[in-house]
Amino acid sequence: MSSPLPHERRVDPIARLVQALGRLPGIGEKSATRLAFFIMRQGRDFAQDLATALLEATERVGLCETCMNLTDELQCGICRDARRDPTVLCVVETVQDLRAIERSREFAGQYHVLHGTLAPLEGIGPDQLKVKELLVRLRAGGCEVKELILATNPSVEGEATALYLQKLLTPLGFEVTRIASGLPIGGDLEYADPATISRAIAGRRHM
Amino acid sequence: MSSPLPHERRVDPIARLVQALGRLPGIGEKSATRLAFFIMRQGRDFAQDLATALLEATERVGLCETCMNLTDELQCGICRDARRDPTVLCVVETVQDLRAIERSREFAGQYHVLHGTLAPLEGIGPDQLKVKELLVRLRAGGCEVKELILATNPSVEGEATALYLQKLLTPLGFEVTRIASGLPIGGDLEYADPATISRAIAGRRHM
Repeated sequence: MSSPLPHERRVDPIARLVQALGRLPGIGEKSATRLAFFIMRQGRDFAQDLATALLEATERVGLCETCMNLTDELQCGICRDARRDPTVLCVVETVQDLRAIERSREFAGQYHVLHGTLAPLEGIGPDQLKVKELLVRLRAGGCEVKELILATNPSVEGEATALYLQKLLTPLGFEVTRIASGLPIGGDLEYADPATISRAIAGRRHM
Repeated sequence: MSSPLPHERRVDPIARLVQALGRLPGIGEKSATRLAFFIMRQGRDFAQDLATALLEATERVGLCETCMNLTDELQCGICRDARRDPTVLCVVETVQDLRAIERSREFAGQYHVLHGTLAPLEGIGPDQLKVKELLVRLRAGGCEVKELILATNPSVEGEATALYLQKLLTPLGFEVTRIASGLPIGGDLEYADPATISRAIAGRRHM
């Protein structure tokens, strides 16, 4: 029997749900099937909750008009927080990176989210990132930013983006800094990759 | 700073989506966050597709009135398929198990889904399973079932459930069989657990 059984020919709601869940990253057909059956066992209220959360998040959430963080208001909570230092601006690749920095509770300034990194081979230049928005913000009257911390990731693309921004921003009179790279806390020299070790040595400090 | 930052106090739509996704099995907070950001990058149409699939699956899908399989009609496709053998009934724990057997294309009879196994300690007795529905079906006029294949899993609960059904069904005059247990195809004696090996030896056949 190589032809499908009759009951498999029609796309039924279960198959459709499995298909929809399978489009999520890291969720293959088996996981999608397990999730679909779990959801069907939970019933309608559970599904309704998740469906509402999906629609609200994609309908009500947009970009903060100032820093490009995600928010359901005009300005995000960080930009609206008067207690944060307006003289230091941390430039990150993604909203996830912004959140990671917030979790560390180490930074009390403002942010700017680029929404990506330069990737010329994929056709992503400065115009595809939120670079123009950054310049508009820095040139606006009342802008108090003195230092820009480039917190793009220490990857090839992140470094290239940081270098591009440094060349763009230094001539405008800003102090431009880069987050440190080196061995992660709790890391072990024995297992660190050569690039990380070389960066840790190059970035050594007096103590 | 041990108190939450002001922008974290309000439950925003993103946090709500992360929370809703985090209720799915095997999806922790990190995965839920990654999924939420992925969904927001995809945008409204993507979320709408998934939301619709969720609602349709939980609203339109119910149990087949005959075999307790999931279906969006009164009877599932297998029960409606006149080419399937009405004299052999395969009893399974879950719809997922039914689907696994269907994928093997080894079985052309009918099914009955118990929706669980006996678990007295968790308060799951025969009344919590679809046992009554099985008896009603077997006693109905026009029922052609001769053999019942007990295809519950070879676990403690599955074996107990099979034993219970065997004692219930044999006196009614049915031929009751149990699926074979032993080493899986491609398995290796060296790595097989003792229970599987002992079952494989006890179930040995002439060749």
